[in-house]
Amino acid sequence: MAQFPITDKTEITRLPKRGVYDKDAIYSILDEALFCTLAYSNNGEPFQIPTGFCRIADTLYVHGSVGSFYMREIATKKLPVCLSATIMDGLVLARSAFHHSVNYRSVVIFGKPRQVTEKEEMYKALEVFTEKMCPGRWADVRKPTDNEWKSTMVLAFTIAEASAKVRTGPPKDDEEDYSMDVWAGVVPLKITHGTPFADDALKAGVKLPSYLQ
Amino acid sequence: MAQFPITDKTEITRLPKRGVYDKDAIYSILDEALFCTLAYSNNGEPFQIPTGFCRIADTLYVHGSVGSFYMREIATKKLPVCLSATIMDGLVLARSAFHHSVNYRSVVIFGKPRQVTEKEEMYKALEVFTEKMCPGRWADVRKPTDNEWKSTMVLAFTIAEASAKVRTGPPKDDEEDYSMDVWAGVVPLKITHGTPFADDALKAGVKLPSYLQ
Repeated sequence: MAQFPITDKTEITRLPKRGVYDKDAIYSILDEALFCTLAYSNNGEPFQIPTGFCRIADTLYVHGSVGSFYMREIATKKLPVCLSATIMDGLVLARSAFHHSVNYRSVVIFGKPRQVTEKEEMYKALEVFTEKMCPGRWADVRKPTDNEWKSTMVLAFTIAEASAKVRTGPPKDDEEDYSMDVWAGVVPLKITHGTPFADDALKAGVKLPSYLQ
Repeated sequence: MAQFPITDKTEITRLPKRGVYDKDAIYSILDEALFCTLAYSNNGEPFQIPTGFCRIADTLYVHGSVGSFYMREIATKKLPVCLSATIMDGLVLARSAFHHSVNYRSVVIFGKPRQVTEKEEMYKALEVFTEKMCPGRWADVRKPTDNEWKSTMVLAFTIAEASAKVRTGPPKDDEEDYSMDVWAGVVPLKITHGTPFADDALKAGVKLPSYLQ
């Protein structure tokens, strides 16, 4: 299994047994997470913003409007960023308040932005992003016009300095607490898709596509 | 409705109609979100970490181990932080790739940490946090011992500089695209709780509590 190198920034120092540096494990978290937060620092002040993203090979892509202040800011100043994505898998209910926890998978990545200028790479990034959010969608939709491409900014981050932190399994209580009359276990958490509801302005006769059924 | 003042940092400049500064709206997002990301900057380098949190009145609390590097770092250096929490409400499927979006509610807060030293405030923060994650739980569990208190760090952030960004509703397409034979609408997203599963080491006879049924 290919691993990311452990650096000063990515080493999991608190509960190191939860640290994961395996590339496939990290990529699978990124491919499942619906959004990431992008943090950067400007004049010593931290900022962050939630945003959609996708991954292609060892590159993470975010996109936005060319009018987006933060995207212009990090692109033009080539500011170092920290990206993170988190999936919550369950509430871990222990017998003691102290040992309550959550099961989760989170990734943190450090890197610098590269503004994508080749249309082919931009196209691919938007296609993969759309397919990540809704598999099957890209083939159906009207593709971007030249003007739409001009108003879209895509930033790429090479995933080189990255680690994940993962907790799984049941609660871990203190030995003497296992005899308590307190229920303990895990409540799974999952993001579920509800029944799609059509736009009121949907053209008559257009049916719900198979990939949404 | 009480509003947060709009500052240089919290003003929503991109799609300002999505900007929300109403306190109750921001608090309700914070009370629903299961985790936040806490970003800070050290020597110009951005860092961020996902963490659980809760809100009491105008204060946001996070907690962790006194052995947590990042918590000690921001507490001792009183580093400015940026906190954000996001709830994904739906996939917004437009007729054009360009107008695809998501319905979401996100909050961004700027502030400085205050380390909580009064046991009463720490206790209240952990109680409210536990009850946020699992209403009804606090009454059931073994409360922290003195040693557990000593190994827990709670940081408080006054919610004073904050804004939210919210998108709701159907896709908004270009006028000429409404006649296309493409399904458009919203796929709701929701975090759901699965069936709880008991710890293998659960004491015989302990039943699933009513608040988990």
